[in-house]
Amino acid sequence: MKKTISILPGDGIGPEVMEQTIRIIKKIENKFDHYFTLNHGYIGGAAFEKYGCHFPDTTLHVCKNSDAILFGSVGGPILESHSVKWKDCEKNSILALRKNFQFSSNIRPAKVYPELQDICPLKDSVIGENGIDIVIVRELLGDIYFGEHKSYIIDNIRKAHDISEYDEKQIEIVAHQSFKLAKLRKNKVTSVDKANVLDTSKLWRTILTEISKEYPDVTLEHMLVDNCAMQFFINPSQFDVLVTANLFGDILSDAAAAIPGSLGLMPSASFNVKGFALYEPSGGSAPQIAGKNIANPIAQILSFAMLLKQSFHLIEEANSIEQAVHSTLKAGYRTQDICLNKSKAITTSEITDKILSFI
Amino acid sequence: MKKTISILPGDGIGPEVMEQTIRIIKKIENKFDHYFTLNHGYIGGAAFEKYGCHFPDTTLHVCKNSDAILFGSVGGPILESHSVKWKDCEKNSILALRKNFQFSSNIRPAKVYPELQDICPLKDSVIGENGIDIVIVRELLGDIYFGEHKSYIIDNIRKAHDISEYDEKQIEIVAHQSFKLAKLRKNKVTSVDKANVLDTSKLWRTILTEISKEYPDVTLEHMLVDNCAMQFFINPSQFDVLVTANLFGDILSDAAAAIPGSLGLMPSASFNVKGFALYEPSGGSAPQIAGKNIANPIAQILSFAMLLKQSFHLIEEANSIEQAVHSTLKAGYRTQDICLNKSKAITTSEITDKILSFI
Ligand SMILES: CC(C)[C@H](C(=O)O)[C@@H](O)C(=O)O
Ligand SMILES: CC(C)[C@H](C(=O)O)[C@@H](O)C(=O)O
Repeated sequence: MKKTISILPGDGIGPEVMEQTIRIIKKIENKFDHYFTLNHGYIGGAAFEKYGCHFPDTTLHVCKNSDAILFGSVGGPILESHSVKWKDCEKNSILALRKNFQFSSNIRPAKVYPELQDICPLKDSVIGENGIDIVIVRELLGDIYFGEHKSYIIDNIRKAHDISEYDEKQIEIVAHQSFKLAKLRKNKVTSVDKANVLDTSKLWRTILTEISKEYPDVTLEHMLVDNCAMQFFINPSQFDVLVTANLFGDILSDAAAAIPGSLGLMPSASFNVKGFALYEPSGGSAPQIAGKNIANPIAQILSFAMLLKQSFHLIEEANSIEQAVHSTLKAGYRTQDICLNKSKAITTSEITDKILSFI
Repeated sequence: MKKTISILPGDGIGPEVMEQTIRIIKKIENKFDHYFTLNHGYIGGAAFEKYGCHFPDTTLHVCKNSDAILFGSVGGPILESHSVKWKDCEKNSILALRKNFQFSSNIRPAKVYPELQDICPLKDSVIGENGIDIVIVRELLGDIYFGEHKSYIIDNIRKAHDISEYDEKQIEIVAHQSFKLAKLRKNKVTSVDKANVLDTSKLWRTILTEISKEYPDVTLEHMLVDNCAMQFFINPSQFDVLVTANLFGDILSDAAAAIPGSLGLMPSASFNVKGFALYEPSGGSAPQIAGKNIANPIAQILSFAMLLKQSFHLIEEANSIEQAVHSTLKAGYRTQDICLNKSKAITTSEITDKILSFI
């Protein structure tokens, strides 16, 4: 198979975990006889340094001419967020990318690997016998992200507002996606909202309920967002597919991604209705550990596996990567974020060596 | 001391945990020679049944003529939320109460009791040696709660919006409160926002930073809400005082309240700038277990202790209740929500007997 992939490493640990992932890509190419053209693009602070903006046209061009996007991470240290390089960096890069390609839904799994149960922050009794295996479907183009943002002064008092908006079409897209996903899994969708306060949530609940009629085999449950955040601690194994609006999805998917014990483990995918997609690790750019060759590359590597599966339908290839990751973890190899005994941790490139050896 | 307390039991488990709390109130009256006039008021679904509305004038009158409000909980089963009795129940009752008395900040502790570490969902290694002792200060009158909520149809497409609003005065109130609280504790304030997307969050961050100058001994840290939700799992003992906007506070305070292992344990207080306050358990009305005498009354009882301390400055009295609760738990008495071996659980009234015996 011949395919073109946009490679956007971005900032912080992005470049180094991407570098390792490219070694995996090469191995898959050789082993399974594919040809992947990798087109690099600058994004975020890295793009700002070279082009003076966070999302240059040349990067947009690279993305437009590819079959899928593999994204690293963007953003700088929180204390430098006022500098020109980092100001509005995330808004101008990842949010602009989502808007540009109309990536309307973000899919994030949160799974507790049996061989990593010791690093899961929850007690074994909370995880239970069935383990934790949640997929979060987050709406990506509506809510308070893309409505009006405004700062102003009235009578010498500083004020600001942000508008959250939804229409039924936006909600329908993720509703269908969630029910379809649930049919391939445990047939349960939990829709999370704040319908006791918000009109957007009331609309959300109405549409989810309507669309659920088309999927009679799937059970739909509604849950308030505050309760959901709590249930992640009390009984996380109750969830199968969880669908929610953009802002709640941002918060809940990061919380869920923490359950396995490291953000360095979880991939994610953002789709538009045409099926074009961007794949990225769930974690951020982690500037404090960047450049040290200690970051965990697994989330980036599994994002590539997700890309193979979802965008190119290369199931065997994707499985071979996932299994190699499992074998590596089972054999006890750990980067520092997932290592209880820090002195035994291996580096970003060393763990990739191990994964490569298992493919 | 002579004081008047409004007693608003509300719905679900509210009436039964309030009934037990009144036994505690009587005991404190006798033991410390105070006189508390308890004026009952209907609220929520209970008020709707009697008066046809969720917050009748007579209840408002009761509250206005009291020195503090002790509140139970409101709301019905999620599946009945479309019935007239439950529709908009929370909005019309607890949100109306907050608005009416201008309760601008909500204080919620989340503390892991050493004697209950076994029911904390987090592993001992995550809790760490210093335990978990967080106080969340949540702004209660701004954000997306009280801005415009609107549902409409354009070109046959259903749409909705909700507006989030803040002005600097609202933020200043909770900022001062947080720094003052931190000075009595570990001198650390974590302000949580989504400043990489929202203008209200940018204003929030600016005001917190400005006000922090008046409290040079206190360290201020800013954290994004998605990261914060994650940190609750990874490293919750890093937090001392956490201050945040209304909606994030709703989500994060429920998540934090789950860390101790049961929502049945955590009290909360809502203050206005004059110091008038409402006290309520952090948990909801839990209709599924209502009327069975199995609910945990501790959060309601500790809400009364908080009332004694904060509104009446009766420190010794409040401490005697808190210590009695600790002794009861240390002696191994448990309601079912905090009991690993359910067959050994005792009832709502039985655990109150024990607490009474320790006062
Ligand atoms: C960087 C930020 C704007 C972004 C978001 O809030 O969507 C990130 O947190 C994410 O979850 O992808
Ligand atoms: C009942 C509901 C409107 C309320 C809120 O969201 O504020 C509740 O969840 C709370 O936290 O007190």
